Amino acid sequence: MAIGITKSQLEQVLHREQQRFIDEWMRFLSFASISADPAYHTQCVECAGWLADHLKAIGFSVEILETSGKPVVCAHYDSGTPGAGVLFYGHYDVQPVDPIELWTSPPFEPQFRGERLYARGALDNKGQSFYFIKAVETLIRAGVLRGRLTLLFEGEEECGSRGLSGLIPQVRGRLGADVLLVCDTEAHAPGVPAITMGLRGLVGLGARLSGPRTDLHSGIHGGLAPNPATAIARLTASFHAADGSVAVQGFYDGLPPPVREDLECARRVPFDAERYAREVGVAPVGGERGREPVERNGFRPTLEINGIHSGYGGPGSKTIIPAHAEVKVTCRLVRGQNPAHILELVKEHITRHAPEGLKLEFTHADIGGPALAADTKAPAVKRAAMVLREVCGADAVFTWCGASIPILSALVEASGAVPVFVGFGLVEDNMHAPNESFSLTQFRDGFLYAGLMLAALQEGHVQPVAQRERAVV
Amino acid sequence: MAIGITKSQLEQVLHREQQRFIDEWMRFLSFASISADPAYHTQCVECAGWLADHLKAIGFSVEILETSGKPVVCAHYDSGTPGAGVLFYGHYDVQPVDPIELWTSPPFEPQFRGERLYARGALDNKGQSFYFIKAVETLIRAGVLRGRLTLLFEGEEECGSRGLSGLIPQVRGRLGADVLLVCDTEAHAPGVPAITMGLRGLVGLGARLSGPRTDLHSGIHGGLAPNPATAIARLTASFHAADGSVAVQGFYDGLPPPVREDLECARRVPFDAERYAREVGVAPVGGERGREPVERNGFRPTLEINGIHSGYGGPGSKTIIPAHAEVKVTCRLVRGQNPAHILELVKEHITRHAPEGLKLEFTHADIGGPALAADTKAPAVKRAAMVLREVCGADAVFTWCGASIPILSALVEASGAVPVFVGFGLVEDNMHAPNESFSLTQFRDGFLYAGLMLAALQEGHVQPVAQRERAVV
Repeated sequence: MAIGITKSQLEQVLHREQQRFIDEWMRFLSFASISADPAYHTQCVECAGWLADHLKAIGFSVEILETSGKPVVCAHYDSGTPGAGVLFYGHYDVQPVDPIELWTSPPFEPQFRGERLYARGALDNKGQSFYFIKAVETLIRAGVLRGRLTLLFEGEEECGSRGLSGLIPQVRGRLGADVLLVCDTEAHAPGVPAITMGLRGLVGLGARLSGPRTDLHSGIHGGLAPNPATAIARLTASFHAADGSVAVQGFYDGLPPPVREDLECARRVPFDAERYAREVGVAPVGGERGREPVERNGFRPTLEINGIHSGYGGPGSKTIIPAHAEVKVTCRLVRGQNPAHILELVKEHITRHAPEGLKLEFTHADIGGPALAADTKAPAVKRAAMVLREVCGADAVFTWCGASIPILSALVEASGAVPVFVGFGLVEDNMHAPNESFSLTQFRDGFLYAGLMLAALQEGHVQPVAQRERAVV
Repeated sequence: MAIGITKSQLEQVLHREQQRFIDEWMRFLSFASISADPAYHTQCVECAGWLADHLKAIGFSVEILETSGKPVVCAHYDSGTPGAGVLFYGHYDVQPVDPIELWTSPPFEPQFRGERLYARGALDNKGQSFYFIKAVETLIRAGVLRGRLTLLFEGEEECGSRGLSGLIPQVRGRLGADVLLVCDTEAHAPGVPAITMGLRGLVGLGARLSGPRTDLHSGIHGGLAPNPATAIARLTASFHAADGSVAVQGFYDGLPPPVREDLECARRVPFDAERYAREVGVAPVGGERGREPVERNGFRPTLEINGIHSGYGGPGSKTIIPAHAEVKVTCRLVRGQNPAHILELVKEHITRHAPEGLKLEFTHADIGGPALAADTKAPAVKRAAMVLREVCGADAVFTWCGASIPILSALVEASGAVPVFVGFGLVEDNMHAPNESFSLTQFRDGFLYAGLMLAALQEGHVQPVAQRERAVV
């Protein structure tokens, strides 16, 4: 189907070049580009530098754009032939690695076990970025890449995208495109591709309660000193009602119901609770009682505790009243929720529930971005569905994903592009968790999808950007 | 006042021998004898060995008694002259050291800053044990120690005293004494000595909630997977009612009111809330509303959270649903509470409040021991008050301490001895916390007290053990 390149041509390149692709991918993964922890700043900068050099060698004109945080790598390729303008977004930063003791091999020393490559970022998002880069390289070397292609890689997706967010107004002129491709989502199941039609928004907050100057003896001070561990537990417990709904005042205010067609479309993919329990190790009993899983995850907002820490955590017992306690919270938002407003509501809730006698501070407060919805009827989305059927031999399902790529709504707005979210992650890849991995099978599917999709977008069927195709924020 | 030795003779010895005493004390402190963490088992055994050798060199006949846990060091000295039998109890094990990053100098490399020696155990209980040992050494070398003296050092006071507990029935015959001296408590204030008349009992428990096999992406799984961090917070919050009382069913059942005379005696020492806030860094607003501090700490039971941990605790944000969560709890008990029964009630409470979908396990469950009360009218207690006035130039106050030395009630029972609890710890010593320390001034007071008290107990005024003097458990 593709102009310029076929599936079997791509497969031949992959077969021939596989070892080089793997070597380069492993190099990319060896940078400990953890954006949330300032201790890894240098590794982030070095990773951006390596990526820029790699793209230059492929034939891109590359800029490293300084931001308030980590650098953004912006690579342009103009084929000189007419065609659609494509913007690709990815990120080179990764999640922290703790609990480090649960990793079988060191997270930044990529290791194959079977056909799976284990490393932090193997999937998210270095793995998915890299099959895209290798597909682009293949098209350029074959002389078949048409139109204009811009690749944009940021280094703060995992911690709020502040740098890129501040940069967009300045580079707006360079971002204009017809289609925005993003490969940072999941497949539905092994062999069953997915096009993600909705992503939730994100805000995050950390709060710390401080009490005594130091940990206290729990006997000498028990009954006298207020206990920050108890206080953080009570505060944390106050975030949810008994039915699992979020108890932060105003959290659901003015929320429109899900678009009926979208919810119906999402329901067509039956949620398999038994398979979920088998794969994840826990029954899907989280979230709001009385709503079906597909709605709870894709169409309803959540407030999750990402961490709660206070006092002694070693073996056995230690009889203390801890000096302080911390909790980290993120909210996933849906259409109709303003991130800044929700963040304010959570802050107010915490302030209102902070206990007597302890000092409250907010350790961080991040506005990720609002929810984002794509359009099932957009031609680029239909094109992606055709390509995925060719690659995987199975129909893609449309999914409404509970995850977030907070910067995307700003990118959609700045580029005027139609977003297409296709990714090949699987539950067993352990994204954001110890022993993250990505298989060669998944890499192959991604590589074929990227190559064929880039070619397919040049087939002359891409419509001018119409209002109805624009993402709804 | 003392038979055999005077305050000024003891002061002369201290002046002459101070450097040697310090060197030996620092050696004692250099063993990382953390009993709660199995990783330090060897260090505990080595510490016991060093202590046994040290006591042998002083002239004791010493046994190292193996137990189910850490060895017990039991040292006998029979002067061959008639006189009272004295049993001294101390412990060579120490609390864990974390958060290690808050220590100014390494916890097992003792360091003087001014006249304070900083090390884990500097006070609790190596420091207080050591001034006692040095006082005994001084009396033996001066040839003035009369009667029989048994020193008993265990290595599991900080984690439940299981070893010594199991040993007591076997060594019961060797423990018989008229007076039990313990130096593991605090002074009232710098220069104001205290005799502790009550100690609370102790039980401890750890619970773990496990959910998903691994940390999950909080977007992909938010609204589906139950969150162990939220669950542990709700469970932990359920331990207390809004008025600060313990909400575990049956916790206060059948509790007798405090002995009126004791409470009145305790009230004679006014509780200074402003001084507490200044010294501890937090206002004394913990415990049950509507009860005065001296009652809340000395005469009422508590349930304290010693630690709560789940998920990410590093800098910034990490968007996960944690795989598991843990909480550690200890209860301080008062007269009328049976430790095994209270432990059962707490377990039942946790089981009843464990959330749907998560797996509950108890990581440890320790019965420390019941509360212990001494008798303000016992002659040995009066003798201690006289000695303390001579040492400190100030009247001792009687205090009801919120802390526990769980094994003591078993020791009182086995020995038939009248307990006398005198110690020189201060709030600023940071017991159980980072930068634990003990000053040379405190060491001196303890040394003088120990020497004069041992002499005073031989003055012929010690009564035979009468039922009214026996500790009330």
